[in-house]
Amino acid sequence: MAEQQDTILQTINSPHDLRLLPAGQLPQLCAELRRFIIDILSENPGHLGASLGTVELTVALHKVFNTPYDRIVWDVGHQAYGHKILTGRRDVFHTLRKLGGIGGFPNPEESEYDSFIAGHASNSISAALGMSVASSLKGKDRQVIAVIGDGAMTGGLAFEGLNNAATNPNNLLIILNDNNMAIDDNVGALSQYLVNITTSQTYNKMRYNVYRWLKKMKLITDDRRGNILRFNNSLKALLTQQHNLFEGFSIRYFGPVDGHDLNLLIRIMNDIKHMQGPKLLHIKTQKGKGFKPAEISATEWHAPGKFNKMTGERIHSSDLNQPQLYQDIFGHTLVELAKEDERITGVTPAMPTGCSMIYLMKEFPKRAFDVGIAEGHAVTFSAGLAKDGLIPFCNIYSSFMQRGYDNIIHDVALQKLHMVICLDRAGLVGEDGATHHGVFDMAYLRPVPNLTIASPLNEWDLRNLMYTGYKGDGTWVIRYPKGKGEKTDWCNQMEILPTGKGRKLRDGNDVAILSIGPIGNEVIKAIDRVGDKLSVAHYDMIYLKPIDEELLHEAGKRFDRIITVENGVIKGGLGSAVLEFMADNGYTPRVKRIGIPDAFIKQGSVPELFKLCGMDAESIARTILEEN
Amino acid sequence: MAEQQDTILQTINSPHDLRLLPAGQLPQLCAELRRFIIDILSENPGHLGASLGTVELTVALHKVFNTPYDRIVWDVGHQAYGHKILTGRRDVFHTLRKLGGIGGFPNPEESEYDSFIAGHASNSISAALGMSVASSLKGKDRQVIAVIGDGAMTGGLAFEGLNNAATNPNNLLIILNDNNMAIDDNVGALSQYLVNITTSQTYNKMRYNVYRWLKKMKLITDDRRGNILRFNNSLKALLTQQHNLFEGFSIRYFGPVDGHDLNLLIRIMNDIKHMQGPKLLHIKTQKGKGFKPAEISATEWHAPGKFNKMTGERIHSSDLNQPQLYQDIFGHTLVELAKEDERITGVTPAMPTGCSMIYLMKEFPKRAFDVGIAEGHAVTFSAGLAKDGLIPFCNIYSSFMQRGYDNIIHDVALQKLHMVICLDRAGLVGEDGATHHGVFDMAYLRPVPNLTIASPLNEWDLRNLMYTGYKGDGTWVIRYPKGKGEKTDWCNQMEILPTGKGRKLRDGNDVAILSIGPIGNEVIKAIDRVGDKLSVAHYDMIYLKPIDEELLHEAGKRFDRIITVENGVIKGGLGSAVLEFMADNGYTPRVKRIGIPDAFIKQGSVPELFKLCGMDAESIARTILEEN
Repeated sequence: MAEQQDTILQTINSPHDLRLLPAGQLPQLCAELRRFIIDILSENPGHLGASLGTVELTVALHKVFNTPYDRIVWDVGHQAYGHKILTGRRDVFHTLRKLGGIGGFPNPEESEYDSFIAGHASNSISAALGMSVASSLKGKDRQVIAVIGDGAMTGGLAFEGLNNAATNPNNLLIILNDNNMAIDDNVGALSQYLVNITTSQTYNKMRYNVYRWLKKMKLITDDRRGNILRFNNSLKALLTQQHNLFEGFSIRYFGPVDGHDLNLLIRIMNDIKHMQGPKLLHIKTQKGKGFKPAEISATEWHAPGKFNKMTGERIHSSDLNQPQLYQDIFGHTLVELAKEDERITGVTPAMPTGCSMIYLMKEFPKRAFDVGIAEGHAVTFSAGLAKDGLIPFCNIYSSFMQRGYDNIIHDVALQKLHMVICLDRAGLVGEDGATHHGVFDMAYLRPVPNLTIASPLNEWDLRNLMYTGYKGDGTWVIRYPKGKGEKTDWCNQMEILPTGKGRKLRDGNDVAILSIGPIGNEVIKAIDRVGDKLSVAHYDMIYLKPIDEELLHEAGKRFDRIITVENGVIKGGLGSAVLEFMADNGYTPRVKRIGIPDAFIKQGSVPELFKLCGMDAESIARTILEEN
Repeated sequence: MAEQQDTILQTINSPHDLRLLPAGQLPQLCAELRRFIIDILSENPGHLGASLGTVELTVALHKVFNTPYDRIVWDVGHQAYGHKILTGRRDVFHTLRKLGGIGGFPNPEESEYDSFIAGHASNSISAALGMSVASSLKGKDRQVIAVIGDGAMTGGLAFEGLNNAATNPNNLLIILNDNNMAIDDNVGALSQYLVNITTSQTYNKMRYNVYRWLKKMKLITDDRRGNILRFNNSLKALLTQQHNLFEGFSIRYFGPVDGHDLNLLIRIMNDIKHMQGPKLLHIKTQKGKGFKPAEISATEWHAPGKFNKMTGERIHSSDLNQPQLYQDIFGHTLVELAKEDERITGVTPAMPTGCSMIYLMKEFPKRAFDVGIAEGHAVTFSAGLAKDGLIPFCNIYSSFMQRGYDNIIHDVALQKLHMVICLDRAGLVGEDGATHHGVFDMAYLRPVPNLTIASPLNEWDLRNLMYTGYKGDGTWVIRYPKGKGEKTDWCNQMEILPTGKGRKLRDGNDVAILSIGPIGNEVIKAIDRVGDKLSVAHYDMIYLKPIDEELLHEAGKRFDRIITVENGVIKGGLGSAVLEFMADNGYTPRVKRIGIPDAFIKQGSVPELFKLCGMDAESIARTILEEN
């Protein structure tokens, strides 16, 4: 059935084909594109909502602009599935986010139509501005378009881009794709601002009269370029009691317009594409547009997993007696601690559902802060809370914490503020690929003085570490992975895990394995595989910093062979810490480090990637035996 | 003479004393405070301009607010010298920025009046908001005031703070200290915006008439709180063809007012201090106020070194036949390369003078970009330039690059874009202390795939590395220190330094020293000190990544003892890289790592700090001999 319906889409092998289509066929192309996305994603999980919302925008962009010469810079690639399908990747779209398949985000390595990488939010304006300024310097007529969501617009990087957009000659077009959502509901003043400027009742009715009057009073003239436009925005600001942020940045503002009205989008883009200078087109779209269940519940359908495309039923594998997600252990435990101590608060940059801080928000709404996509602010704001005697748990995905690195060093660690930083999605994350693997954190945080850095072997220890960090002092970092834990009975009675102390999980004589975090469970399985062939000791370090020196002295004295295992880059992490200790203390064991090699790892399932990196139980067992 | 005049200042041992003074004596206190700052700084170099500009503000703040219960969060501590002097540090103020003395920036460890650390720009709003929200949650009546310059306001972190300021109950007062300067002239739309809203001619004349008319037309009413205020700002926006950014963030805006009118400042602060909700007071000040030479040339007098306080003459040590500053080698060499290849461009976040990109700006103004205090944008914007075929040299102080870490990983390295990142002020920087030491970069960048990371032994190699990076491909990072180089004849004919190749500076048999960067010159001196007592080989690695494996094989095979020396944290840097290589390749030399220990290092001169860290020639010589 699908093939019959996709009669137009099947003929589009590049945007060139799209541009040759009669205008009258474009609406059907949009319908087919939308259906195609739903078809494929119902079987191959991906980010459904955002891409359904940008179908008309995507078609309009490739219709109006001469891609790939003209450049579209997507901000956060979830929006860009339609773009992938229309730019030669229709027939491999079913491999999306799979090992060896196409990635979930735009990637210049994958296609010349992907102008820039787009895994972390808010980078599009800066990158596109660079391209547009370069084009202008070189005297080219290239058009550069940044497509940024209202969520990504809350990131400081986007603001830095906006602040610079008007300072050098360029032709940048910023399209603000406003669906009033990041992943969860959008927050902050910007969000409220966008609602206000699109809902003014009096604006259209009154502007002509006021304009005429002000002109008569010679308060406004027609002779400056952009005058009327700015006048309109000023007036809008006046009447809505709000102000136009973008005009404040000397960027010409157009909109808001209906982002699902294809003809309107095409007409406006054609109108403004040759205007000189930076400009912003504000479009309103609906996340999940065209698929009723996703329209109704956008957060749930952001990345729904498999679903029945006819009934809209999401297909869950049976969860009975299954381990819970680590994020949920975090979320429930935070509520438990918050009930015990009213100083406990939670801070998340736009991930209340993703990190399960939503439970705290529901239970103690005043003590949970979703600050929008703003990792740096999340950390420094938490530092301010900590300074005044609260105990914030600041939860940020490991790879996104790269945005808050200076804040951890300068605003938190230097002042020894007592807070607990939780790095969710630490280690390889699977299908989201290179931009999202949280593999650098141990290497970049270990050199920072005053931090206590730990990772739990399982759910119980996650709870114990959260409890220990809360009861302790100074700055704690607890990293744990995406996905499920190990236990069905996760709700232990929490206890203190002494700071800087690891534990011996198993004794042995031939080789010692030192692991940190849940990857230790792969080690346990590996040792089972090795069986009687070798006597293997296994230490769970728990703490990367301060590292357990007593344990390492024991390992250094007793073993000629040590293997370190960590779910992070091997340059600079646990393995390096062990090498440093051995060198500093005059031990000379052979040390083999297992971890992520020095390369960006693409997408695939976590077990596939573990295997690729030699970190699965089988590979670890082989390493134990091979190098003996 | 000074003592006689400082009759009031000498009685102020805390803000409590200040608050007891009759209002009529406050202007004299300001005059004495200003003179005291000039007196001390003429002998003890520091940041003169910013603190002279905030004398009245500082006195007003401590007069109106109940410090330290109420909290002042200074953004970038250069403004806070007056604050230090009035809060019990008058008599130790001459130890400013010296080893064992008081720091150049506010620091809670130093005084309870210093609410938060303030070395890196733009963090004040986030931190103060955290304190204010915490205060509100706990039902306290604490006032929290963030004092932020117009330069710091261009940072993304400040915008993230603004965007969140209105989302939770709080009482935050933001004081925008607008001197139209960061260190160099301020850039970006915000800067232009601030000029425009303070220079509107028609505004005051017209607003009453327009207001009356609009009210008659029922377009505006009096009954909503803040209505009139917002109306005024809207109207101002309308007439200036600009918009009030801050009101766009739902923050109440007051100003601009003269920041040197003490009585006005006190009156306004008293008026607004009990208003609920976040508010912003925009004050205009003059950097260097009260000291003519500094008023005239603010950039030069930002941190002038010693000077004659009577004549305004800056006291330079004779520069004849002295080595140049590394930053100038960078600046001149960049111009030289730019003349050769028109693709070469320069990007700096607000440091054109500090990093000497000013030379490129003068020679090729269209090819040099000062993007304001916005490190993340600087990197991603450079990536955009690189994507379109330019070759940007992006120069950022090492410690500030912590703000651009994710941008390097996600926007540059992942895409293997060809650009040259230059990290000025890498290693210990001396008097600016813990917040400014650029000691983490090697540890946090080494784990990032695709980077080439190098550091020159001297000026010639800095030029050679810039040349090699320009001629090479992929992403280059070149780190070099603050201060002067080694040579008087720095202008060599540039040549390629083969990527990933170090060099043997001196052969020997007993111990091998592996160093990277100019700290190698301390090693050279150390080996001279050792003399005949031991046969010491010295290798200059040049490249941290890719590391010279051939060289390391030689070292591993030939030596039982290896010493690594680096001007960076020893956890994760060169020493760790050497340990990793030795472990991976089965060598078992004793390795001693010399570098910055795992602690935040305070201020002091660079030689003093080298000694403290065991990195000066004498200490290195001792290490060479001691552990033999």
